Amino acid sequence: MRFGVNHTPSRHWFHAWHDFDPDAARRDLDAIAALGLDHVRVMCLWPLFQPNRGMVSERAVGDLLTLVDAAAAAGLDVSVDALQGHLSSFDFYPAWTQTYHAANVFTDPSVVEAQARYLTVLAEALRDRPNVLGLQLGNEPNNLLPQNPASAAQIDAWAERLLGAVAATLPGRLATQSAHDAVWYDDGHPFTPASLATRGTHTVVHPWVFSAHCAERYGPLAFQSTHLAEYVVALARAYATDPDRQVWVQEVGAPAPLIPAELAPEFARQTLENLAASEALWGVTWWCSHDVDRRLVDFPELEYTLGLLDSAGAAKPIGEQVAATVAELRRHRPAPRAQSTGLVLAEGPDRRSRRAPGGDYFEAWMRRAAEEAPPRVVLAERAGAARDLELVEAG
Amino acid sequence: MRFGVNHTPSRHWFHAWHDFDPDAARRDLDAIAALGLDHVRVMCLWPLFQPNRGMVSERAVGDLLTLVDAAAAAGLDVSVDALQGHLSSFDFYPAWTQTYHAANVFTDPSVVEAQARYLTVLAEALRDRPNVLGLQLGNEPNNLLPQNPASAAQIDAWAERLLGAVAATLPGRLATQSAHDAVWYDDGHPFTPASLATRGTHTVVHPWVFSAHCAERYGPLAFQSTHLAEYVVALARAYATDPDRQVWVQEVGAPAPLIPAELAPEFARQTLENLAASEALWGVTWWCSHDVDRRLVDFPELEYTLGLLDSAGAAKPIGEQVAATVAELRRHRPAPRAQSTGLVLAEGPDRRSRRAPGGDYFEAWMRRAAEEAPPRVVLAERAGAARDLELVEAG
Repeated sequence: MRFGVNHTPSRHWFHAWHDFDPDAARRDLDAIAALGLDHVRVMCLWPLFQPNRGMVSERAVGDLLTLVDAAAAAGLDVSVDALQGHLSSFDFYPAWTQTYHAANVFTDPSVVEAQARYLTVLAEALRDRPNVLGLQLGNEPNNLLPQNPASAAQIDAWAERLLGAVAATLPGRLATQSAHDAVWYDDGHPFTPASLATRGTHTVVHPWVFSAHCAERYGPLAFQSTHLAEYVVALARAYATDPDRQVWVQEVGAPAPLIPAELAPEFARQTLENLAASEALWGVTWWCSHDVDRRLVDFPELEYTLGLLDSAGAAKPIGEQVAATVAELRRHRPAPRAQSTGLVLAEGPDRRSRRAPGGDYFEAWMRRAAEEAPPRVVLAERAGAARDLELVEAG
Repeated sequence: MRFGVNHTPSRHWFHAWHDFDPDAARRDLDAIAALGLDHVRVMCLWPLFQPNRGMVSERAVGDLLTLVDAAAAAGLDVSVDALQGHLSSFDFYPAWTQTYHAANVFTDPSVVEAQARYLTVLAEALRDRPNVLGLQLGNEPNNLLPQNPASAAQIDAWAERLLGAVAATLPGRLATQSAHDAVWYDDGHPFTPASLATRGTHTVVHPWVFSAHCAERYGPLAFQSTHLAEYVVALARAYATDPDRQVWVQEVGAPAPLIPAELAPEFARQTLENLAASEALWGVTWWCSHDVDRRLVDFPELEYTLGLLDSAGAAKPIGEQVAATVAELRRHRPAPRAQSTGLVLAEGPDRRSRRAPGGDYFEAWMRRAAEEAPPRVVLAERAGAARDLELVEAG
């Protein structure tokens, strides 16, 4: 089980890519390594990396390799996200997809082919670096849907094309897509559980306690909040067709004031311990490494204080707790929980909203998890293949 | 009379700001100086210079100063445009003005105050450089109106606030705004002749032969095409309240195929010679220095070949002609034409379309210019103050 953190550069946040400072990067990575973590997830800015449809910036790719090598020197592996795209409420679009050149970034063939070339250039540059875990299409691209509407079939085709480009160029590494929680919770959302759980090499989840008001609904240290990540992992596993497919909890964090700062260490400890007993978990990557410097304005308030480290690089109480919990889990990882019960996820029309916090399936799962043990999630249409479990209908 | 060129970086076009190479800049500037020109206009990329509403990039400002100093070493003065904004069909918006953070860049008070801070930071950085001619708000910001609708009063308030910021910080230099030709030709356009001709220190015009199909309508070397820039200068002068106010022909160029490449040198020669006899002309800045590298895709075709130099830096025939014409005009500048006739621009509802190529006022001015001499443009409401001229009603 891997433990890491999403790297949010302490100096200039992701605008650091315009003014890349290897020393600042090294300081960040050394502070991250000092917490006992083993990897970082790093995120490119698409307009800087591909400023013209016909050009991937050699300078930007060179800076990325410098960051990857600095991570190696600090003993850290690296996962790279390419198409940002979306970061902490800000959307970064290249000028060649906007206004006079407006094009849907999911469905316009020339844009999608350009994205494939960009991913291929990154994959070629990264493949001789042994500490590169893999390449992900981008951070929660479903945040871009309001400006780029697309059907599920179109999103599937987009992901298929781009994951194919990564797999072809960077074989043997992680090739993944991500999405915010709407993929699991929103009826009709064009990013689908089936696509997340079957395309690419791993299933990525970003179980945030603000989604569907989980923490507000149940409380910051409620069973439902501290088992949320584990629940979404179980949900994601149910859609996999490969029984050995691993799930990566790629973002999980303690957003204030939903998780008050004084409860954040305890929230982190319980969340990590609960996750550690999950089946088929690849690892956990906390969001995020560094608080956002208050000199940078316009972020939603909760985005400023998600760091394990403050914006000067000092460990916060949650950082110390995560370090202690990770060290303990490395020493004594709990055995995966024996799962004797399967909670059946009904067939039929899209019922994703029933699986969101507050939904009847969510509540049934949490009740059973609290009373007995976390049940496996079983799709009704696959119930026949789950005869080793005691199958229970949810509600 | 000043002669210069708009600098379009040969390496990476304006994406050079992300990957600034002082040696490449010096090569460009030396090649420009070798044409006998005396200044360059340079254009920042707003999202790189102000990546967050609360942050102007020290790195970007430092690169700009390096460019300014390299120009000084080449014997060139520099004018700087800040808010790009729009360049050759591409619009560059900071993420903090888009999507989740969508805000009108002309009317949102927090955006306008941020623009004022950005201009102030640039002005402070530039003011100890004696070769800095001045600071302009941005390149043709009226290209941004479709995404940022605004009334004339709102545009006036925006320009007033930002030109005030420049004048306060960079006194004694040029403080200007620019607009594409719609300001002179389009009824109801919220950028107005009165604002262009009275705000800031100089009136800026961009008389392009593609506007209102001038070159297509009359022919590439037609009297109307080679006198177009002179006509727009005369039109701009009419709206000035200060009789000594100078006009800057800040962009003029020979777009193919409207001006076929083999006719471009002659078009340039005649345009410059005709302009040189204008009254109250500050100078001419050709668009542009370097052809766009074909590796960069998606530009409108005519944008690729507007350079006096090719993308490798070699002078093209039009570059050699401009160099020769400028040298000749420096030796023998024609005396400003004696203007004995005033062609009256009727009062009343907005009649800008009648002044565009093809409009009756345009044609009357061109007829009289061809038959006698270019007349002065006189606003009807100021005819009383033009008693030294023979006043003629147009049409």
